[in-house]
Amino acid sequence: MTTQQLHEQILQKKSFLCVGLDPDLDKMPQYLLETEDPIFEFNKAIIDATHDLTVGYKPNTAFFEAYGIKGWMSLQKTINYINENYPEIFTIADAKRGDIGNTSSMYAKAFFEDLNFDSVTVAPYMGKDSVEPFLAFENKHTIMLALTSNEGAFDFQTLNTNGKELYKQVLETSKTWKNSENLMYVVGATKAEYFADVRKIVPDNFLLVPGIGAQGGSLSEVCKYGMNDKVGLLVNSARAIIYASKGTDFAEKAREEALKVQQEMADIIANK
Amino acid sequence: MTTQQLHEQILQKKSFLCVGLDPDLDKMPQYLLETEDPIFEFNKAIIDATHDLTVGYKPNTAFFEAYGIKGWMSLQKTINYINENYPEIFTIADAKRGDIGNTSSMYAKAFFEDLNFDSVTVAPYMGKDSVEPFLAFENKHTIMLALTSNEGAFDFQTLNTNGKELYKQVLETSKTWKNSENLMYVVGATKAEYFADVRKIVPDNFLLVPGIGAQGGSLSEVCKYGMNDKVGLLVNSARAIIYASKGTDFAEKAREEALKVQQEMADIIANK
Repeated sequence: MTTQQLHEQILQKKSFLCVGLDPDLDKMPQYLLETEDPIFEFNKAIIDATHDLTVGYKPNTAFFEAYGIKGWMSLQKTINYINENYPEIFTIADAKRGDIGNTSSMYAKAFFEDLNFDSVTVAPYMGKDSVEPFLAFENKHTIMLALTSNEGAFDFQTLNTNGKELYKQVLETSKTWKNSENLMYVVGATKAEYFADVRKIVPDNFLLVPGIGAQGGSLSEVCKYGMNDKVGLLVNSARAIIYASKGTDFAEKAREEALKVQQEMADIIANK
Repeated sequence: MTTQQLHEQILQKKSFLCVGLDPDLDKMPQYLLETEDPIFEFNKAIIDATHDLTVGYKPNTAFFEAYGIKGWMSLQKTINYINENYPEIFTIADAKRGDIGNTSSMYAKAFFEDLNFDSVTVAPYMGKDSVEPFLAFENKHTIMLALTSNEGAFDFQTLNTNGKELYKQVLETSKTWKNSENLMYVVGATKAEYFADVRKIVPDNFLLVPGIGAQGGSLSEVCKYGMNDKVGLLVNSARAIIYASKGTDFAEKAREEALKVQQEMADIIANK
């Protein structure tokens, strides 16, 4: 998928919502646990109930890997289900990968070719040759951690490096990499005031924004500082939507929560 | 496994070699490709041929994930094979994981519980709450990236942060985390002179050292600066050993290469 297609989908759906798929057996309705593949059934129900309100789904690979081979099979079924039934949806493998060049090539193959995701999240610590193998894939997108939404973000990401915070150096350096136009960045919503600084460095790239919902970030604040003329944001919400109810109505309640966010987004787009 | 048990194994085998398992179908002997699970058969042959010369095996998860579910099954068979046949061996899931707390908990579950590895590699960029969930597991070890062996290591890891390089700040900060005694660190062999600085900060922790062999690092240089009184090093070699031959003698040739490294290590331990 091209960023132009993603932008068109945003305008059509009046939404820049991405739903995080963090399937946790402990948080699902009881009856699903009796099915053959509870994780897939859960995801499928969430996807069917929300696909017209969201432009992206972001399966979090940890929540699949924790269940071993069975979990990896559920991940494959989930991405296949989205690609077959809702091909307009932008898919993100939230995997936070990154390693030396030949290893990163194998991760890129895993997520872009074997699983056929549109994008994957990567960590920047190992630098240029750990990220460029991902960037080499045409019409695939590499979403690099810049400033994350967790408490530990302040351990290293905001350290002063030669007069600027590390995350700003990460943004600046990454712009010099080959095929850097295929980069998007993770910028956490819990620190809306940082978005103005981020936009000075990467005015055009899409930003994937976790931290809305369960983690407490404000959507309007993020949009005020982070939107560009192509919207340029994918705001992720996982727990607040997918675990809105633990009853048999979980998909319906997930839709209600997604609709609230989508309506707020439609207003923001209209008033821009 | 405790670090004491690892140390005892090192003294017994006169080796601190760790063999990296990066199974690549393009580099394997042709006849293996006709078996039902070439990746597992390749690993099994390497393991059977080298287990008395090495104290650890380090499957690189990327090389399994690239083959999807089949690859994940090969990973599971490989770790099970080691645990069942050579329980004294220290196993490392080279996965470079790390995410917000509840997600890191799921990764820890995947590698420590579901797959039953002794250790996993993690990336530090997201800070304390992305690593502590791994550290909570008793007799399991979390191997955090400090200074890696690739070219991109110099993009961010050696940036000056308040008067010291970032990787030193990473080492220092991590010492304050809960259960930090369960930390080991990745320090690349391609920069042996850095080991003296690393040892000033973390004198006691084991260091996992990639970069010997195909990546060009010197074993004697690394040992000169990096060894402590418990040896404290796990030196990884992958390509130079496992791809020593592409013929039917690949396992035999792998043993020959491993033996060369082990003998060099035995000399170093004896002369210490």
